[in-house]
Amino acid sequence: MIQKDKYGLEQVRPAEIEKRSFEIITEELQGRTFPQEQESIIKRVIHTSADFEYADTLYFSEGAVAYALDALRRGACIVSDTTMVQSGIHKKTLHRLGGEAICYIGDEGVAALAKEKGVTRSAVSMEMAAKLDRPLIFAIGNAPTALVQLYEMIQNGKLKPELIIGVPVGFVNVVQSKELIMQTDVPVIVARGRKGGSNIAAAICNALLYKIDNDRE
Amino acid sequence: MIQKDKYGLEQVRPAEIEKRSFEIITEELQGRTFPQEQESIIKRVIHTSADFEYADTLYFSEGAVAYALDALRRGACIVSDTTMVQSGIHKKTLHRLGGEAICYIGDEGVAALAKEKGVTRSAVSMEMAAKLDRPLIFAIGNAPTALVQLYEMIQNGKLKPELIIGVPVGFVNVVQSKELIMQTDVPVIVARGRKGGSNIAAAICNALLYKIDNDRE
Repeated sequence: MIQKDKYGLEQVRPAEIEKRSFEIITEELQGRTFPQEQESIIKRVIHTSADFEYADTLYFSEGAVAYALDALRRGACIVSDTTMVQSGIHKKTLHRLGGEAICYIGDEGVAALAKEKGVTRSAVSMEMAAKLDRPLIFAIGNAPTALVQLYEMIQNGKLKPELIIGVPVGFVNVVQSKELIMQTDVPVIVARGRKGGSNIAAAICNALLYKIDNDRE
Repeated sequence: MIQKDKYGLEQVRPAEIEKRSFEIITEELQGRTFPQEQESIIKRVIHTSADFEYADTLYFSEGAVAYALDALRRGACIVSDTTMVQSGIHKKTLHRLGGEAICYIGDEGVAALAKEKGVTRSAVSMEMAAKLDRPLIFAIGNAPTALVQLYEMIQNGKLKPELIIGVPVGFVNVVQSKELIMQTDVPVIVARGRKGGSNIAAAICNALLYKIDNDRE
């Protein structure tokens, strides 16, 4: 029985809050099961959003989680479309494995080039990242134009990423860009529909990194 | 009529994407009206989350928006509980007005003090911020313990913030902490219920800053 304080708050020690949250999520999923490798990712996204819709909308291409973990263990870098994703990624494990969290959206030159080409800064930042000679995971939480840019570079043979996390949010071309990226033969984790966001992208990255931590213990 | 390209994507110029998104949001709200000063904030939160539930759950205390705009114009700093909120705030207007985006969660000493006291780092980071001799807006997107800490400091006369944006997300004490902060006489903007997040906190900050930009044009 959980005690409550004078404000009606559950008396849960700081270190136990996350554990208790996941217990509640599991209870409310009412026995629903997921493929074993996907479960902790789906639950972490629900934890981050308090939105159980993700139990239905998260799509994993065959073997996506295994590919992602392998890439991270080889020192893959995580390229994001926003600094919020970059900021939300827990860097400790990523850095230990040799990876980095990269975002070029604020880079000098990106804005100018985007204006010149009449495309978004997000799309240009993907082109910049594609030039990196490293294993790359893309985590897109905001810009459908970034996903479309990735699609085109993959189709043109200019990019072969280890994984694409495609979870932009919004109303213009968001749904279509996600369906498009699912048509490539690149491993993907996608939140189908309009929902997603930088928080969701970071949560998926962190769920993958925590899996590696847990395997180590 | 909006043209579509070979991928089925709407042909919208980068500068028009946000405008088109807000048009869709307005359409889907089906004529629903909001108090004038709240409307752009509610719509920006929906834009950030693709979640129309916020049209029902966002609570504004009387005059909260006017207080917030006045504080920002006086150079208020925005203190957040996560670096994601800090990262998501558009700094240009904030800096022009003399404010800063502040987050002490990763500060040296915060972790040690939290461990010593058996409380969260978020709560300790609020205590640190309360010492700042500046007008303060708190933007809480993650930690209910931060909201509870703010409540106690306000009740004890140790803090008189200009505004509290109370939008933590999750399952343990989140709902209660929001209801608690609504009981103070401090201006608040709260997302009632479990939902919220760093993205929502940043979106509310930015909607306020954009209001100031728009008034200037």
